[in-house]
Amino acid sequence: MDSCPAEYVALALRLADAARPVVRRYFRTPIAVDTKADASPVTVADREVEATMRAILATEVPDHGILGEEQGRDHCDAEWVWVLDPIDGTAAFISGKPSFGTLIALAHRGRPVLGIIDQAYTDERWLGVAGHPTTLNGQPVAVRACPDLAHAQASTTAPELFDAATRPGWDRIAARVGRLRYGSDCYAYALVATGFVDLVVEAGLKPYDYAALVPVVEGAGGIMTDWAGRGLTIESDGRVVAAGDPRTLAEALAVLAA
Amino acid sequence: MDSCPAEYVALALRLADAARPVVRRYFRTPIAVDTKADASPVTVADREVEATMRAILATEVPDHGILGEEQGRDHCDAEWVWVLDPIDGTAAFISGKPSFGTLIALAHRGRPVLGIIDQAYTDERWLGVAGHPTTLNGQPVAVRACPDLAHAQASTTAPELFDAATRPGWDRIAARVGRLRYGSDCYAYALVATGFVDLVVEAGLKPYDYAALVPVVEGAGGIMTDWAGRGLTIESDGRVVAAGDPRTLAEALAVLAA
Repeated sequence: MDSCPAEYVALALRLADAARPVVRRYFRTPIAVDTKADASPVTVADREVEATMRAILATEVPDHGILGEEQGRDHCDAEWVWVLDPIDGTAAFISGKPSFGTLIALAHRGRPVLGIIDQAYTDERWLGVAGHPTTLNGQPVAVRACPDLAHAQASTTAPELFDAATRPGWDRIAARVGRLRYGSDCYAYALVATGFVDLVVEAGLKPYDYAALVPVVEGAGGIMTDWAGRGLTIESDGRVVAAGDPRTLAEALAVLAA
Repeated sequence: MDSCPAEYVALALRLADAARPVVRRYFRTPIAVDTKADASPVTVADREVEATMRAILATEVPDHGILGEEQGRDHCDAEWVWVLDPIDGTAAFISGKPSFGTLIALAHRGRPVLGIIDQAYTDERWLGVAGHPTTLNGQPVAVRACPDLAHAQASTTAPELFDAATRPGWDRIAARVGRLRYGSDCYAYALVATGFVDLVVEAGLKPYDYAALVPVVEGAGGIMTDWAGRGLTIESDGRVVAAGDPRTLAEALAVLAA
């Protein structure tokens, strides 16, 4: 995997530090919820958090690209592209539930080499950097072993996430896993990296939903691919699998392909 | 509604204070998970938290009854019965997700008059006492208005919670609500009381799953009933509806009965 210059790690942490007070200021306050073209919710908090991070990037690295959930693509053919989801899990955010997170990724030639999952309410920050161990609030974390799907603690955000093409694959996974939890958004991937969840399977994700998760999961010893087992780039199809143990991943991919 | 003597409120808070460090000691540690006869998970944390609370009650109020998830019924024909779920949402607990909670209720002649939802990791404690406003960490909280199901933020733990008898009713609710979240356990009811979730519908609950939630939701201005609209007692059938606004509740009950 490509490496990530230390100055960009420092910049990513600065983005997370700037985002956090904005998130906290709006969480559990009665704010208006708009509905986007894809029927997903958006609030002033999403927009203000992204604008805050974009302003820093515009000053510090004006030649880098930015791909953000709320304000779109800017120079995404650049060597370095920042991929931002100001509030992943806006539906959780507006219902007062701290499973949302601010996602910050840096992609080098399309491949994520840095990822941050920042939970502003529980004060948890996972940092993954290519070639380094993933940390939670500065302490290294690691995936756990899991021999097969039957022993796996699995998670997905909601069964409704899957469409006609992907639902059968998900249903086969759901029928085989040891335990299943819904509703975790990005937090589920953080828990894979921390060794308490073994498998996350999702579909319909956008690059800003998954790019930051890859370095976090992989720096903790896990693996994250698309449903065909290919490494994720910012051009992947939005079907993702994250696992702590390669045996769990291999079985999940086989079941999805069946 | 019956009232609750102040000395019992103090005792309930003491139980929560004693439970919290035990919960924190085990959360996000690799502990063994056993499977109970009903296929639900249980750990040493569940057992030790309940034993800690029972020991205090045995000393302080030996003539009161206790109904606990892990150690069963004791004197449940007493005038006052403590209803304890040491870790509601054990499945969340073992996957590292802070939507679990310690539930402590006191029922007077079968009707819950005090409830605590204690989240040890996020440091949140909701306290509901008959005749008093519900508080979150000492600050009053309140439900929000919601005119109908179409505007409701709804929540349930998982679609699999429902059986052949209850699933059709849930499916009708899910098709009508404005937004839906899964996976919240007791936390969803706390968020009704705090004004960020409008409706929770569940089935198959035991008294220790719902007794503590009733005073929390009702003290915040909400309503909690069974699916037939009857007030909940420790002998109810485990089908529950919690709503912040009586209009939401009325429509939900009509849809469930349809």
